Amino acid sequence: MQAESFLKLCAAQVEARLEAILPSPNTRPTELHEAMRYSSLAPGKRIRPALCIACAEAVGQVNQAVIDAACAVEMVHAFSLIHDDLPAIDNDNLRRGRPTCHVRFGEAIAILAGDALFAYAFEVVSKMSAPPEVVIHSLTTLATASGSGGLVGGETVDVTSEGKPVDQSTLEYIHSHKTGALMSASCEIGALVGGATADQAYALKQFGHEVGFAFQIADDLLNELSTAEALGKAAGSDRARSKATYPALHGISESRTAASEAIDRAFEHLDSIPNPDTLVALARYSMERVH
Amino acid sequence: MQAESFLKLCAAQVEARLEAILPSPNTRPTELHEAMRYSSLAPGKRIRPALCIACAEAVGQVNQAVIDAACAVEMVHAFSLIHDDLPAIDNDNLRRGRPTCHVRFGEAIAILAGDALFAYAFEVVSKMSAPPEVVIHSLTTLATASGSGGLVGGETVDVTSEGKPVDQSTLEYIHSHKTGALMSASCEIGALVGGATADQAYALKQFGHEVGFAFQIADDLLNELSTAEALGKAAGSDRARSKATYPALHGISESRTAASEAIDRAFEHLDSIPNPDTLVALARYSMERVH
Repeated sequence: MQAESFLKLCAAQVEARLEAILPSPNTRPTELHEAMRYSSLAPGKRIRPALCIACAEAVGQVNQAVIDAACAVEMVHAFSLIHDDLPAIDNDNLRRGRPTCHVRFGEAIAILAGDALFAYAFEVVSKMSAPPEVVIHSLTTLATASGSGGLVGGETVDVTSEGKPVDQSTLEYIHSHKTGALMSASCEIGALVGGATADQAYALKQFGHEVGFAFQIADDLLNELSTAEALGKAAGSDRARSKATYPALHGISESRTAASEAIDRAFEHLDSIPNPDTLVALARYSMERVH
Repeated sequence: MQAESFLKLCAAQVEARLEAILPSPNTRPTELHEAMRYSSLAPGKRIRPALCIACAEAVGQVNQAVIDAACAVEMVHAFSLIHDDLPAIDNDNLRRGRPTCHVRFGEAIAILAGDALFAYAFEVVSKMSAPPEVVIHSLTTLATASGSGGLVGGETVDVTSEGKPVDQSTLEYIHSHKTGALMSASCEIGALVGGATADQAYALKQFGHEVGFAFQIADDLLNELSTAEALGKAAGSDRARSKATYPALHGISESRTAASEAIDRAFEHLDSIPNPDTLVALARYSMERVH
């Protein structure tokens, strides 16, 4: 399937499931539940859920458990965006074309809505209908990818590097942890729940890592090149804050090359995968945005 | 065993294990890892880990998995304290006799250290050496108790009620969610990992709920009656912020009675428990502090 139609299909499935399983905005605490929905259902490409679903499809079956896992990775992503946008961290007012969670609901609710989405992601994975060893492995993968050795670690180095000269190794640390870890985990969990062998799950984890790297560079390029309207957040905002980005360190042309090379490396991990076509399309799509 | 010696023994075991398993402050991101250790190893009674360990002992064996589960509930507690203390929420400067995490490390690191401790709690439980169904049940329990229907939900209602008149049902909501949920989960998880039957685990979950209720009232009473020195945080700080507390709504004498009645109800859940002596001692101890 073409990447764009696959992304749309996944987004529709994941949004419908999130709508159904997120706590109702009519139950207490209503404002918290509203904020959880506001941020996780805000318009987005749902690239992580799509990778999760595509990896399951690439090795086996897409069932309800795969969709639940895809919802969980999207909730972890939404949690990280809410916290990253806070005044004490990136202080962003615009996200996915709408006011950020703390602008809309206040800082206290935003912090707590991030926490609650994070907790709910683990709850959903712990309850998914899959073999016990797959549930446990998925939970370990999700927790490891989210914590101080993954997403949160990457955000920490990103925020503490702000305004300082950033070398290549620090930039790679930020990219591989802040974006790569959850992309990689999305692929690995999708593969596991879809019925992958241990070798296939490991190959798809590596695939996700490379796609995540390319995706982050593409995102940084988009941030440099786009208007705020196309982007849904303030254009050039990374540069304005002197955030560490690949284009800032290496220029636009070399950034495009580095992203393409990462995609080539990603493809090398697909040799043992029975049905890799959608994954290839998604990986190519992540680059098309900036070529 | 006497409650105080049992608490000391549990604290020593849990602190030694946390020291060993928390990411090293010498590995990147060093400041994040320092903050995680600073907050989770700050002096404390470790009442939740003690309940976890006591419940395992009450039905079976205390092994490494029980200690790991006890570390996880303490990390969730530390995460919640870090976030509750933030300027946007309770804005507390003193906790456990030391500057709060954001005062010591700044707001960005404090938010992220809370997130990382929360993630690590799930990682540790997902890796503990216990039967798969026990690991999964423990993870569901921990996630449910932490999220919008538990700890984070209780904190939300607490912070959004600040400065408003609070009725009995709202106060009970806050207590049962903000404190009761994690106390109850600590007991249930300890019981499960210790080898409880389903009925025993359920009874100990109920026990934990009642002890949590009594404990929160006792804490509110202590906050009213103590000096800052004895408390390790600003005395009377709840009243100064006109926070919802049991003593504020019902007075000191009625609060003592309500806590005693909760302890009596807690004891009723111990009928099917083979070895409940330490649990009885811990429940009594939680009240002795305020009589």
